[in-house]
Amino acid sequence: MKMIIAVVQDQDSQKLSQALIQANFRATKLASTGGFLRAGNTTFLIGVEDDDVDRVLDIIRDSCQSREQMIAPVAPLGGAATNYVPYPVEVQVGGATVFVLHVERFVHF
Amino acid sequence: MKMIIAVVQDQDSQKLSQALIQANFRATKLASTGGFLRAGNTTFLIGVEDDDVDRVLDIIRDSCQSREQMIAPVAPLGGAATNYVPYPVEVQVGGATVFVLHVERFVHF
Amino acid sequence: MKMIIAVVQDQDSQKLSQALIQANFRATKLASTGGFLRAGNTTFLIGVEDDDVDRVLDIIRDSCQSREQMIAPVAPLGGAATNYVPYPVEVQVGGATVFVLHVERFVHF
Ligand code: NI
Ligand code: NI
Ligand code: NI
Repeated sequence: MKMIIAVVQDQDSQKLSQALIQANFRATKLASTGGFLRAGNTTFLIGVEDDDVDRVLDIIRDSCQSREQMIAPVAPLGGAATNYVPYPVEVQVGGATVFVLHVERFVHF
Repeated sequence: MKMIIAVVQDQDSQKLSQALIQANFRATKLASTGGFLRAGNTTFLIGVEDDDVDRVLDIIRDSCQSREQMIAPVAPLGGAATNYVPYPVEVQVGGATVFVLHVERFVHF
Repeated sequence: MKMIIAVVQDQDSQKLSQALIQANFRATKLASTGGFLRAGNTTFLIGVEDDDVDRVLDIIRDSCQSREQMIAPVAPLGGAATNYVPYPVEVQVGGATVFVLHVERFVHF
């Protein structure tokens, strides 16, 4: 038995939840915040049999893989627009940080 | 030293907290949500000596064991009552999912 | 690879976050509550290389070490002041409870 701890961005959390349920894996979700990333993220705790670890890692990668996204510019509401970029910019979104820990005992009451 | 990670339904969380304090075990509680269960739950992190694991598992089972409960029907506020069941129904409540992990080092500052 | 799980008082959380970022360690923070302590606390999950564990423990100790603090008295708003202490009192604040767990696999997508 393993405990998979996966930290994913909030925007991918719903997609990962659905994918795990569909594949019949149980996950517990904790609201979290990152150290480097200011944005909110979600920490998934997923208890799995040893043989299912790779399958769950695949699901996490498919749902959360780091990718680039075009962000439309938002015009400033008047005033000094020193940082205003008047064209779409590419930003990196998504990504997951995943730890696999060994579980010595698993009990369900 | 072990880290016990226990996911329990919110309705049993207070009872488990009290039972752990009474038995002199320290727990850290995290608000969490489940994958299958929509309802909120609480994730307990409990650091214990190896010899105390079974005692803590007993406490968790006593506080959270899955059981059946009669739920009184709630009459719909007018309109089509297609799903309305006019008598109490038995639903399963409680239960705990518990993982025991090995702790390599424990420090208290 | 290790997973450091550190439970610290909310009042030290910001300082620890800053210190970890400055030292280039990534942490995920979870809002938590304690068993004995009523007050809120923060649970840090920090994934580190084996060789960095002691350095991170030093940072946690420096940011959160248990210490005494003088608390100014707050005069009661009239009525029976049975518990009122009219001089500053020393209370213990801070402290961290830290668990180090072994990580079998670490993946970043
Ligand atoms: Ni195993
Ligand atoms: Ni041990
Ligand atoms: Ni290691």
